[in-house]
Amino acid sequence: MNRPVTISLDAMGGDIGADVVVPAALGYLKQDKKTALILVGDEDTLQAMLGNHGFGDRLRIKHASEVVAMDELPSKALRNKKDSSMRVAIDLVKSGDADACVSAGNTGALMATSRFVLKMLPNIDRPAIITALPSITGQTFMLDLGANVDCSAGHLFQFAVMGSETVSAVTDISNPTIGLLNIGQEEIKGNEQVKQAHELLHASSLNYVGYVEGDDVFQGGTDVIVADGFVGNIALKSSEGVAKMIRHFMRLEFKKNLLTQLAGLIALPVLRSLAKRIDHRHYNGASLLGLRGIVIKSHGGADKIAFMNAISIARKEVSSDVPSRIAEQVKAHLDKRETA
Amino acid sequence: MNRPVTISLDAMGGDIGADVVVPAALGYLKQDKKTALILVGDEDTLQAMLGNHGFGDRLRIKHASEVVAMDELPSKALRNKKDSSMRVAIDLVKSGDADACVSAGNTGALMATSRFVLKMLPNIDRPAIITALPSITGQTFMLDLGANVDCSAGHLFQFAVMGSETVSAVTDISNPTIGLLNIGQEEIKGNEQVKQAHELLHASSLNYVGYVEGDDVFQGGTDVIVADGFVGNIALKSSEGVAKMIRHFMRLEFKKNLLTQLAGLIALPVLRSLAKRIDHRHYNGASLLGLRGIVIKSHGGADKIAFMNAISIARKEVSSDVPSRIAEQVKAHLDKRETA
Repeated sequence: MNRPVTISLDAMGGDIGADVVVPAALGYLKQDKKTALILVGDEDTLQAMLGNHGFGDRLRIKHASEVVAMDELPSKALRNKKDSSMRVAIDLVKSGDADACVSAGNTGALMATSRFVLKMLPNIDRPAIITALPSITGQTFMLDLGANVDCSAGHLFQFAVMGSETVSAVTDISNPTIGLLNIGQEEIKGNEQVKQAHELLHASSLNYVGYVEGDDVFQGGTDVIVADGFVGNIALKSSEGVAKMIRHFMRLEFKKNLLTQLAGLIALPVLRSLAKRIDHRHYNGASLLGLRGIVIKSHGGADKIAFMNAISIARKEVSSDVPSRIAEQVKAHLDKRETA
Repeated sequence: MNRPVTISLDAMGGDIGADVVVPAALGYLKQDKKTALILVGDEDTLQAMLGNHGFGDRLRIKHASEVVAMDELPSKALRNKKDSSMRVAIDLVKSGDADACVSAGNTGALMATSRFVLKMLPNIDRPAIITALPSITGQTFMLDLGANVDCSAGHLFQFAVMGSETVSAVTDISNPTIGLLNIGQEEIKGNEQVKQAHELLHASSLNYVGYVEGDDVFQGGTDVIVADGFVGNIALKSSEGVAKMIRHFMRLEFKKNLLTQLAGLIALPVLRSLAKRIDHRHYNGASLLGLRGIVIKSHGGADKIAFMNAISIARKEVSSDVPSRIAEQVKAHLDKRETA
């Protein structure tokens, strides 16, 4: 290709839409001079917001007349909104006009549409969602975060391969450690799928370290944690819930009276520095893996900084061609298993 | 019965054993003048620790020659350690010498032994573990926390009934709201068991409010949250992990330099007050429900305050006779369903 790396953005998706995506696009182009972006959505709206942006061909608009609502049923969005900003952004990846796509829209619709338009990679049954989470020692990647419920051991194994490849592609870890989320090591514990996946992983050439428990996600020490989508989603959401609760109580305590307000003022730089460490915005951008193309899901409520981070993740995955790496590795593991 | 309410304590269980349980027993007896405790474990050790305690018959020792290790397989503990402090403490409930039992020992062994010795209540297939967790609006009870993996919709329904009865017994909430843990309301979401349990709960006379997500546990608003043991355990452990990580980073930030240390000193009362709000010790004590007797599991690493809290929970469940209430309510729900 003679064009620069190009990423299509669903400009109307998310809780806020263009008011976040447009500033994020402008911010991103300033910091990455080699990448082009295509804003997909209502042309008049976007044109009016952009004005004379000065990025020339690196920032273009592609018109789409519809928007997928955040609460729209995925099947309905897929069937009825063929000119939605989400659909057109994905179509651009399919046609080769874009190398990746980022959307803050409805997760279910994004997954269903991506799967329909781009198709699955060979030997992968189901797409999975992966994201990085902060941990004491750095970061932990976890998948699946909600695309799949009722997974078989084979699905969990595929997730492990996809997670391993993605993490080695987007970080500097060459052979990521893989853990399988379970509830401890006593004999009554662990469900059937997990026990079988444990055997498959043990027998593979992946850097498998065994079972990990819920608290290991944030303690660090494991690069990739594999779970079925139901469990992964609950773990993610519960953790977000605790963090929110602590933040809420901290504000309440510091606001109690003049003295605590003063203490809060003095502690402010420290608290800010703490907040920065676990700022979810720096972790925004979940990858939809297993597809013949790169699709990044931004949090629906993402702000400019968070959305820019999601674009960066898309860019990294393009550089290292994550889908091809996944396809190769899954095939290699299958071949090895057949030879064994 | 002509004796005071009596609670047997597995004095050797947990990561620390008698060094926590004995001080907790003495501390508890000071604040509750009407209850008696039986310390179960090595008589010589316990006698030496107690000395002349001054509580007379309200604090007795029952000898047991063995201890169940924290990592011992439940089936082995059950088969080989018939004179363990855990087993003898449960036997005392069975024989009627105690009204409830508290152990900080190995969860799997406690569950297996309690089930074997005490037996299940009629119409309950599996025991479940419930505990209170802090939330923005007060507290949320969650079950099951790891006793059951691979639950059917019927099991989840039984958990809901048990949770509802327990919470109305140990709190002042007369008709607790029940939520079912799920991963959202989109059509692709939710596994089969959860969807079926949703129907059963909707059709019942329980105060069912519908699906809740992982973050709702800590946001409050629902009194009882029902999940299968795998999911519940992962949610609990992940949340503990996040809280630990935040604590860790907070310490790190306040220790960075002299200035931040000073800020920390000034903010200390506020931070202590915050810590108190979410102090897991005040939530220590998980109830094993569905048994013909009251068994409370204390956290393995519980300290004196935490263990005392677990004894208080046992005491409350004795007062309101939780097992009988559960048996009655489960029967009532079944009768209603048959009539319908």
